[in-house]
Amino acid sequence: MNLREEALKLHAENQGKIEIKSRVSLKESKDLSLAYTPGVAEPCKEIKENPDTVYKYTCKGRMVAVVTDGSAVLGLGNIGAMAGMPVMEGKALLFKNFGGVDAFPICLGTQNVDEIVKTVKLISPTFGGINLEDISAPRCFEIESRLKQELDIPVFHDDQHGTAVVVLAGVINALKIVKKDIKDVKVAVSGAGAAGVAITKLLLKAGAKDVIVCDRKGAIYKGREGLDFSKEELSQITNKSGIKGDLADAMKGADIFIGVSAPGTVTKDMVKAMASDPIIFAMANPVPEIFPEEAKEGGAAVVGTGRSDFPNQINNVLAFPGIFRGALEVRAKDINEEMKLAAAHAIASLITDKEVSPDYCIPGAFDKRVAAHVASRVARAAMETKVARIMIDPEKLKEEMLK
Amino acid sequence: MNLREEALKLHAENQGKIEIKSRVSLKESKDLSLAYTPGVAEPCKEIKENPDTVYKYTCKGRMVAVVTDGSAVLGLGNIGAMAGMPVMEGKALLFKNFGGVDAFPICLGTQNVDEIVKTVKLISPTFGGINLEDISAPRCFEIESRLKQELDIPVFHDDQHGTAVVVLAGVINALKIVKKDIKDVKVAVSGAGAAGVAITKLLLKAGAKDVIVCDRKGAIYKGREGLDFSKEELSQITNKSGIKGDLADAMKGADIFIGVSAPGTVTKDMVKAMASDPIIFAMANPVPEIFPEEAKEGGAAVVGTGRSDFPNQINNVLAFPGIFRGALEVRAKDINEEMKLAAAHAIASLITDKEVSPDYCIPGAFDKRVAAHVASRVARAAMETKVARIMIDPEKLKEEMLK
Repeated sequence: MNLREEALKLHAENQGKIEIKSRVSLKESKDLSLAYTPGVAEPCKEIKENPDTVYKYTCKGRMVAVVTDGSAVLGLGNIGAMAGMPVMEGKALLFKNFGGVDAFPICLGTQNVDEIVKTVKLISPTFGGINLEDISAPRCFEIESRLKQELDIPVFHDDQHGTAVVVLAGVINALKIVKKDIKDVKVAVSGAGAAGVAITKLLLKAGAKDVIVCDRKGAIYKGREGLDFSKEELSQITNKSGIKGDLADAMKGADIFIGVSAPGTVTKDMVKAMASDPIIFAMANPVPEIFPEEAKEGGAAVVGTGRSDFPNQINNVLAFPGIFRGALEVRAKDINEEMKLAAAHAIASLITDKEVSPDYCIPGAFDKRVAAHVASRVARAAMETKVARIMIDPEKLKEEMLK
Repeated sequence: MNLREEALKLHAENQGKIEIKSRVSLKESKDLSLAYTPGVAEPCKEIKENPDTVYKYTCKGRMVAVVTDGSAVLGLGNIGAMAGMPVMEGKALLFKNFGGVDAFPICLGTQNVDEIVKTVKLISPTFGGINLEDISAPRCFEIESRLKQELDIPVFHDDQHGTAVVVLAGVINALKIVKKDIKDVKVAVSGAGAAGVAITKLLLKAGAKDVIVCDRKGAIYKGREGLDFSKEELSQITNKSGIKGDLADAMKGADIFIGVSAPGTVTKDMVKAMASDPIIFAMANPVPEIFPEEAKEGGAAVVGTGRSDFPNQINNVLAFPGIFRGALEVRAKDINEEMKLAAAHAIASLITDKEVSPDYCIPGAFDKRVAAHVASRVARAAMETKVARIMIDPEKLKEEMLK
């Protein structure tokens, strides 16, 4: 059986991948009277009196909505909400398995920004957090930013920030190998979609000073015609030397290449034209912008991709389960930049200076330490930046998750 | 510890009552590649190509949304969406425990009819059915009827139809005891809210010819001033003798009293004024319209209530888990009147003519046969009335559920 057949069989045999499980047993009349009428009226009355107790008496505080409109599912494009279900269910699976977070797929029968914002807002009483997924750019930026404003629970578009966090973790460790400081490097980013924009912003937040972003038309620069609002914003904060050429021009002399664009857009010669010991994260999937072997022939010191069969896989599963777990544990109102930076550093820190190597800059997806470390650091950052609604001991959370 | 303390403890210890469970294991890279990328793209592509396969490859076909706006939660009234969460989680628990149906709470941050209809419609791609819960009358009628029109999955307001189905089951068996035919009886219903309206309509559908409904102002009759649209409709199909008095007047000579109204509204004398061997279902909760002992002193032949500590408990859990299970198994587009009648007969039929007695007209909530029999009969009715999208063997379903 090939992968296609095996995948279809797995999904059909289980009729999907998630189910609802009871946390309390219902075997006799007494059980019913506590979990349902008349006893259930008691937590209802408590919540009515003091809304914060909804976190104590219901699953809200551990439940994340995985929301999509099906407009940009995997590499499949705009396949619609219902066809996106397997991915959203899969995401819920990852939340549970890696972070101990309960998550539920919400596939929306609309791609209208106003309707999406309104719908998510109206169903939000059930949830402790909103994970936006596979929503196309630039709509995803507006949806996320409006929801962040309107809701008092964390809203996080994983295609943007999950990817950005893991890339930054990889960059932090790769820079150790080539002995460069993030403040001094030049970064070329290929792709100005959800991930490209978020990676760029997080790198800047982490200290990078010189980033240049290319879309299909080449470098994004101040004054380029026809830029949408998100590229317009990029043009203001990147490309300080005002390069107007194509990706090859942007990569000349760059220390880091980050690809979230299309297969095969980078050649060996383009890598050769970069600065010494260049770092390459080529994440087009399944065919990267350049394959690791070719990149190394071009002189790359470190190469990462989105694939599990090459070293240094940029896999969002390293980020979102722990980020949400940490945010939920402190009932955070938001997932802010400091929490994302904390997550990236937590991931990077799991590889010691002794261990770090060109083939090991990013922990593996099944490294059990990751979610616990991320959650703990994220919870701490939330408390430090005052978006946490309750205080916890982050070390205790880590220990509990490592059990 | 009293009930209140025990109930709060149960909810706090478990932080609610439901969680998300994985159906597939994720232990190694291969597992990820089937349940998530790249393998997950295969069911996505299949669904995109042929939308019906969403029932095969995802949890949609076994997932029910338990939707509330918090406007009429238990006997607590309009306590809002978030305070309704414990009830909705409880409902999800019952769905799973009694019917093997996965259900998820959706608490809506609006009580506007248009917004509720729109929101439920937009999140419906995730779900195989919609269970409306604790939405106040008369809004619940419009919401249900519009959703039924707009969606091609079953929509069922349990406070209406779940109650109606179980009441009818009780009536069927009670009539055997008093040896009366439903076609000949006079029924007095106290309460014209969600349950009262649905019970009345289902009794008429089941063959009753003479039903009279009272609200707080007394009998509902043709031409009474100030009737809302649902009571106006009732006035057209009930009260054929045009009684204009109060509940006592309506109950005079009646064979059956059905109370879904307020504690203590019925006296022993009112029961005495009914026809011979009257049947009383007094379901105000926790204090019924009349207590069983008093009703019997008034001459009642059969008494049922909403309480588990008296005989003949009208408990919706006898209906909705099996009804949805049956509807989902055949991918029904709707839950129609025939399916509800089938459910009532399935419940009633579990008590044989030999077993039936004044204290045993309705099976107990923990009778394991109920959901299986209901599901099987409902699936059959769905196929017979052509709302089923696929054909199954209802006997096989029953056997499987009885295992």
